[in-house]
Amino acid sequence: MSAGADLPQRRMTLAASIVGAGASPHAWNWPGTKWNRFADWEHYKRCAEIARSGILDAVFVSDHPALQRDARHGPGHLFDPIVLFSAIAGAIPDIGFVLTASTSYNSPYNLARRLASLDSISGGRVIFNAVASFNPDITANFTAEEILGREDRYRKADEFLQVVKELWLSWDTPEGPEPTGPLWNETTARTIDHHGEFFDVRGPLNVPVGPQGHPVISQAGASEQGIDFAGKHAEIVYAAVLGKQAALDYAAALDGAARSHGRPADSIRLLPGINVYLGDTREEALRRHEAFHGAGSEDDLIARFLDRQREVNPAFPRSVDVDRPLEPHWFEPAEDQIGPVGFSKAVQDLVRTEEPTTRQIVRLVGGNGGHRVVIGTPKDVADSLIDWWAAGAVSGYNAHFPLLHDDLERFVQQVVPILQAEGVFPAEYDSSTIRGRFGLPDPRTTVPTQENR
Amino acid sequence: MSAGADLPQRRMTLAASIVGAGASPHAWNWPGTKWNRFADWEHYKRCAEIARSGILDAVFVSDHPALQRDARHGPGHLFDPIVLFSAIAGAIPDIGFVLTASTSYNSPYNLARRLASLDSISGGRVIFNAVASFNPDITANFTAEEILGREDRYRKADEFLQVVKELWLSWDTPEGPEPTGPLWNETTARTIDHHGEFFDVRGPLNVPVGPQGHPVISQAGASEQGIDFAGKHAEIVYAAVLGKQAALDYAAALDGAARSHGRPADSIRLLPGINVYLGDTREEALRRHEAFHGAGSEDDLIARFLDRQREVNPAFPRSVDVDRPLEPHWFEPAEDQIGPVGFSKAVQDLVRTEEPTTRQIVRLVGGNGGHRVVIGTPKDVADSLIDWWAAGAVSGYNAHFPLLHDDLERFVQQVVPILQAEGVFPAEYDSSTIRGRFGLPDPRTTVPTQENR
Repeated sequence: MSAGADLPQRRMTLAASIVGAGASPHAWNWPGTKWNRFADWEHYKRCAEIARSGILDAVFVSDHPALQRDARHGPGHLFDPIVLFSAIAGAIPDIGFVLTASTSYNSPYNLARRLASLDSISGGRVIFNAVASFNPDITANFTAEEILGREDRYRKADEFLQVVKELWLSWDTPEGPEPTGPLWNETTARTIDHHGEFFDVRGPLNVPVGPQGHPVISQAGASEQGIDFAGKHAEIVYAAVLGKQAALDYAAALDGAARSHGRPADSIRLLPGINVYLGDTREEALRRHEAFHGAGSEDDLIARFLDRQREVNPAFPRSVDVDRPLEPHWFEPAEDQIGPVGFSKAVQDLVRTEEPTTRQIVRLVGGNGGHRVVIGTPKDVADSLIDWWAAGAVSGYNAHFPLLHDDLERFVQQVVPILQAEGVFPAEYDSSTIRGRFGLPDPRTTVPTQENR
Repeated sequence: MSAGADLPQRRMTLAASIVGAGASPHAWNWPGTKWNRFADWEHYKRCAEIARSGILDAVFVSDHPALQRDARHGPGHLFDPIVLFSAIAGAIPDIGFVLTASTSYNSPYNLARRLASLDSISGGRVIFNAVASFNPDITANFTAEEILGREDRYRKADEFLQVVKELWLSWDTPEGPEPTGPLWNETTARTIDHHGEFFDVRGPLNVPVGPQGHPVISQAGASEQGIDFAGKHAEIVYAAVLGKQAALDYAAALDGAARSHGRPADSIRLLPGINVYLGDTREEALRRHEAFHGAGSEDDLIARFLDRQREVNPAFPRSVDVDRPLEPHWFEPAEDQIGPVGFSKAVQDLVRTEEPTTRQIVRLVGGNGGHRVVIGTPKDVADSLIDWWAAGAVSGYNAHFPLLHDDLERFVQQVVPILQAEGVFPAEYDSSTIRGRFGLPDPRTTVPTQENR
């Protein structure tokens, strides 16, 4: 059962990824597009405008503070997310921001201050997506030391989150009538005097408590350490979840992790990633799906899928009957995998629970990083989104589009109106803050326990 | 003689400081103002709009990543400058940004990326004001270690600048027709492979070369190390300079430092800080000057000045004839001074060269941090600004205003039109980039020497 099944159903939430030219590796020079728009901020601003016109809760950017090596793809992670989103916040109202930043290569004071600044300036539109960076290409831009192991990275991330959460509530909002005495004192602005394994931070933060207490905290790691970290700190979790049952199980695991850290039930919103391929007909959508993978047919798509599996797993069989169910043990994550285990686990779960053939699985997984694929007419896509949401498995979705801004615009014009007509998604913004939109409590109203403060 | 005396005179440049509620400690709750506007981004946005309406080159924020202890003053340094300026850049065209950031408590890759992102998004409107932080309150928010000594801070700042300058030119702009091959290769995107005393950074930067090559680099330290650092890296220098001869001497010292690092003559623009007090009459301006210092009269202003000198220097005489010249040795900077020596040296220079009385000096120095004071009618102020500029002593000014946004607006409405009518300041923006406005070369066109690359 869903962890939140006995709780009132909230409306669906939706975010749109606006990374680079789109999720397809062929997006950057897609016919009719400006090939170097990934380097033009007007492109991202336009995506945010479109997302706002669809009343989407937020735009999302993942991040990678290094030039990505595969130069065949258009690069996605150019502008620092805080700069890009702050510029958009100055230009466009309402739309929220899922801002990805590393807990490994930032100082907590600086990052807490930047996020609090944007949350204040935007009126409470910020979600901090904390990542414990694992990529050696990133590490090389910051240190000559070896990359930390997963345990150490998450211990550091945990301490980082403790510090930023304390900093964010360290100086009370200067509201109300003009004070007769000093503007603040030790009661209204409090040092945190943190001295930990990784960080020493005195505080208080020099940005006062913001419009939603502090930015909403999100996370995306699916390793054991990642789920425990989410249980302790996350309010929103992005995940690669490929089946409805897997989503229900994932939500339950997150809920269990949150309870184990003393948090109440229903503390975490699950937003799986989806790759949306729209067509006026299902056939058109299938052909676009193939084209955005650089494939000319379904057979071609299948061949590419099999090649990729054999690349990442030498034990993957050389010969496969594409119309017979795949076998779960072919998708075992490597024991020494240093990268994210979420995507590998999600595929294995799907193979185990839904027993797809190769022909089927190529229509269920892929695109950007292995998120769930949703292909079809606007009605097909809307029905599919409502299905998981109505089951209580998910709060909503983080949608990736093969081609930006085009496919985002199509989604907003064709799918969102159906969701609105079905009454599951709002026709106008129902709250100025992310907390209001996601039904998340203000951290000033929750009593911190020793464990989760 | 001015170092640039044999070079063509450029037009005057002007930046406006928009820190907090204004430079006066009494600005925050000045009658008729919103007392907590220092925490409201609309206040800063409005200041930037006003600056733009006056064709000012840039708005300036100093920075202090710690809550300032003197709670009687309105705080000035809340929002992270990169967030504040990015939001303004998204909302307001043309106006440039002098962004102060610490070379002690940032990583060069992240800061280079943020500045390059804003420079690209804003179309070339960024000046990076590099500071080698010296304040123990700041240090305590980042480390439990002792603050570095000045020599070490500047050695670190020097390495920091070397790294960011290399990063900024490491990935060529993706312009022109669509490439037939990969989007970049080792020739168009180059690792920097920096391994130094303080930093290890591989690169390339994941933001391509921007509209003005890279952001303009500015600096404000006036110690021996600061001037050497400016000679090596700075294109603009902000300074506390209180007399015209001191400005000429300072410009010559900067030029000498630049030449000693193999740079051509006239490489550095000097912008002294000024505190502007405007009145419809000189009498009104004098009364406003007193009021913004919390003084009810000139005698009161004098008493406050003497108290302050006695606070910072126990050897300052107990009794002073306020109508006799001050003595230079009363203003000797402390040998173990850890803070900025520029302000102390500037006052001593003024006392030595212009021999002011106490009654005179209180009208020449003060306000925000000890910058030059300019008091009078709009015509008085404009004449004074033109005087130093016409002598070739300065490129222009970084203006501080006692009350924001009011005094900035008054300056833009009353002083700027005189400067425009005199032909020393443009009536519309004459370049989209800071380099264009300040007559600074594109770093892609200057051949790097081993020393200053």
